[in-house]
Amino acid sequence: MSTERIFNFSAGPSVLPLTVLEQAAAEMTNYRGSGMSVMEMSHRSKVYLNIFEEVKSDFRRIMKIPDTHEILFLHGGATLQFSGVPLNLIGKTGKADYAVTGNFSGLAAKEAKKYGEINIACDTEDKNHTYIPPQSALKLDPQASYFHYCSNNTIYGTEWKYVPETGDVPLVCDMSSNIMSIPVDVSKYGLIYAGVQKNMAPAGAAVVILDKSLAGHEHPLTPKLMSYKINIDGDSMHNTPPCYTIYMLGLVLKWLDTQGGIEGMEKIKAAKAKMLYDMLDESKMFVGCAEKEARSDMNVTFKTDNEELDNKFIKAATAAGFENLKGHRVLGGMRASIYNAMPTEGVEALALFMRDFERNN
Amino acid sequence: MSTERIFNFSAGPSVLPLTVLEQAAAEMTNYRGSGMSVMEMSHRSKVYLNIFEEVKSDFRRIMKIPDTHEILFLHGGATLQFSGVPLNLIGKTGKADYAVTGNFSGLAAKEAKKYGEINIACDTEDKNHTYIPPQSALKLDPQASYFHYCSNNTIYGTEWKYVPETGDVPLVCDMSSNIMSIPVDVSKYGLIYAGVQKNMAPAGAAVVILDKSLAGHEHPLTPKLMSYKINIDGDSMHNTPPCYTIYMLGLVLKWLDTQGGIEGMEKIKAAKAKMLYDMLDESKMFVGCAEKEARSDMNVTFKTDNEELDNKFIKAATAAGFENLKGHRVLGGMRASIYNAMPTEGVEALALFMRDFERNN
Repeated sequence: MSTERIFNFSAGPSVLPLTVLEQAAAEMTNYRGSGMSVMEMSHRSKVYLNIFEEVKSDFRRIMKIPDTHEILFLHGGATLQFSGVPLNLIGKTGKADYAVTGNFSGLAAKEAKKYGEINIACDTEDKNHTYIPPQSALKLDPQASYFHYCSNNTIYGTEWKYVPETGDVPLVCDMSSNIMSIPVDVSKYGLIYAGVQKNMAPAGAAVVILDKSLAGHEHPLTPKLMSYKINIDGDSMHNTPPCYTIYMLGLVLKWLDTQGGIEGMEKIKAAKAKMLYDMLDESKMFVGCAEKEARSDMNVTFKTDNEELDNKFIKAATAAGFENLKGHRVLGGMRASIYNAMPTEGVEALALFMRDFERNN
Repeated sequence: MSTERIFNFSAGPSVLPLTVLEQAAAEMTNYRGSGMSVMEMSHRSKVYLNIFEEVKSDFRRIMKIPDTHEILFLHGGATLQFSGVPLNLIGKTGKADYAVTGNFSGLAAKEAKKYGEINIACDTEDKNHTYIPPQSALKLDPQASYFHYCSNNTIYGTEWKYVPETGDVPLVCDMSSNIMSIPVDVSKYGLIYAGVQKNMAPAGAAVVILDKSLAGHEHPLTPKLMSYKINIDGDSMHNTPPCYTIYMLGLVLKWLDTQGGIEGMEKIKAAKAKMLYDMLDESKMFVGCAEKEARSDMNVTFKTDNEELDNKFIKAATAAGFENLKGHRVLGGMRASIYNAMPTEGVEALALFMRDFERNN
C-alpha cells in the first residue's frame, strides 16, 4: 500500500484539490463544533442552511451571475438535464436547435427528440468530431425554443472558443467539463448546466444556472423534481438535496478563491494546456487528435501512430504514477484530463515523462 | 468549538455510525493505497468497480434479494421515484392503487395522478395519519398495475406491521425510513425503493430493488435516466452514478454486519424503541402521537399538552446535547428518529432526560 498520491488524469469523476480533501477528512466526524458530520445534518437545520447559503453566494460571486438568473443544485448529473432542458423549455415553439460536436451533445440531441422537433444546427461527425464549426456554419432556426451546445467535448478534446450568436433564441449550454476554467458572461445564456464531477466536486449533482423568466412552462408530464419552477420555488430543496456534494463544492469554491478565482484559473489552465500541446507539436511520436484551433484546455487527446505503442505508453505511464491516461473507447489513444484541480506539477511531470518515453522508444 | 459528538435525532439526513465516518476520513486522501480519494475515481476504473460490486453483493446478501430482482443505485432520492414508478409501471393498465398513510405516500399519489388513474386504497387523514388501516379496510382495484404504499411514515411516526395482500397486483413500497431495520421477504414485492439518507448513507441517492420482469414498459416520454430498463442494462452506470454515496453505503453495510445484520438490527431497534415507548406510556406529561399498534420503531412522535412546554423541552434537550427533536411542522410536538445508526446509549440518555424533565416541570 502506497501512502503517496498519484497524478490522476481521469476525465470524470476526477482529481480534487488535496487541501480540500484534507479539510473534508478533518471535518468528517464533527463539523466545526456542531457535534456531527455534514453528512448527518438535516438539510433544514440552521447549521446546514448556513453551509448551503454560503456555497450559493460564493458560486454567484465567482461566476458573476446576475440577479436575473437562479442557481440550482440538483440531483442526477448532466444526463438528467438532457431530458430536463427539453421538458422545461421546448414547449415554447415545440422546436429546438442542437449543435452536435461530440458524444454528449449527440446524446442530448437524441434525448430531446422525444420531446419536440430537433434541428441539428451542425454535426462534426464528418471529421470524427475533431473540430468546432465557425458561427457561419451553424444552421439556425429562428423558431427554435433554444439553441443547445456543449462547450467542451470531454471525449474528443475540443472546446468552443466563441459563444454562438443566436439572436433572440436563448442559449443553453452544457458546461460540465470546462465550467469555472474560463470567465463566462452568464447574461448571454438562457441556461447553463454542468455535472459537478469534472471541475467542481465529487459525482452526484448538477448545477443549473437559468434565466428565471424561462421557468414555469414545463410539459405536464415533467417529473416534479425536474421542474425548474418547482426547484426555484423550493431553493433546490423540494426534496433532500445531495447535501454533502454541495458542501464539497463549497470547499472547492474556497480553494478556487486561493487560485485567483476564475480569472486566475484561466491563466493557470492555459499554461498547463500549453505545456502538453507544445510537447505534442514538437513530438515526432505523439500527435494531437483535435484540430489545433479547437483544442480543449481541459482534455488533451493524443495518439502515436500505432495502437501497440499507445498501450505501451499507457502501461508505462501508469507504472510511473500517471493514472487514467487511456483515451475513451470511442476514440482510442490517450487523453490527459487536466481540470482545475490537476496540479501544474502533474502536467509538467507528464510532459517530461512523454519526452523521455519518446526518446527511449 | 466542542470536540464531542452530540446525539442527533434528525429524521433525515441522519446519524451515521461513528466508525464509518472515521473510516471515511482515514481513507479520504488515499483509498487503500490507490493514491486517490474514492471521490476522484473514474466510475469505470477497476478500483471503483471493485467497490461498486462489493456494495451490490453485500446489499443482495444482507437483504436476501432473489435473482429475479435487480438492485439499482440511482440519483434523485425517493422523490424522483414518485414519478419514476408510474412512468415505468402504470402503462400496463393505466391504473394504480395508492395507500395514503402520511405525507410522502400522499405526495407519491399526487405525482402519480399525472401519469394515470389513481385509486386511493386508503387515506388515514381522517385521524391525522395516526394509524395504519387493516388489510380488510384496503379498497383494492384488481385492475391496478401496482399497489403503492410507504412502510414507515417518518413525519407521523407510524409503521405498517403487515405486508398488504394484493393478489396478482405487484406490491410497490417506499421503504425510505425503515429499510434494513427489519427482515423483508423481497420476493413478495414487485419493487422496493428507498432514499438512502435515513437508514443507509448520506443524502444523494436512492436504491431501487425491482422484479426485472416489470421493466421495459415505460412511458415514451420517460427521461432516459429514469428508465428502469436502461438502468438495469447499464448496471446503474448509464451515467456517472453518485459514486461516493454508494461507497458510504458500502461502509454502512459492513458496519451492519458487525451488528448481526438485519436480524441483529431488528432486535436492537426494537429494544431502543421500547425504551422510549415505555417511557411515554408511564409518563403523565408526554403522550405518543401514533396509535399504539401502529407505532414506528424508527420515528417516535410525542407531545406534551401544551406547545409552550414542547418548546421548553426542545430547547432544554438541545442544550443537553440532544439535537433535532423538534417535530415536523405539519404535526408539531417532538420526534425522535432512532434509525439503525442511533446508538442505544443515545436513546437511553434521552429517556432519562425526559424523565428528569418531567420531574422538574
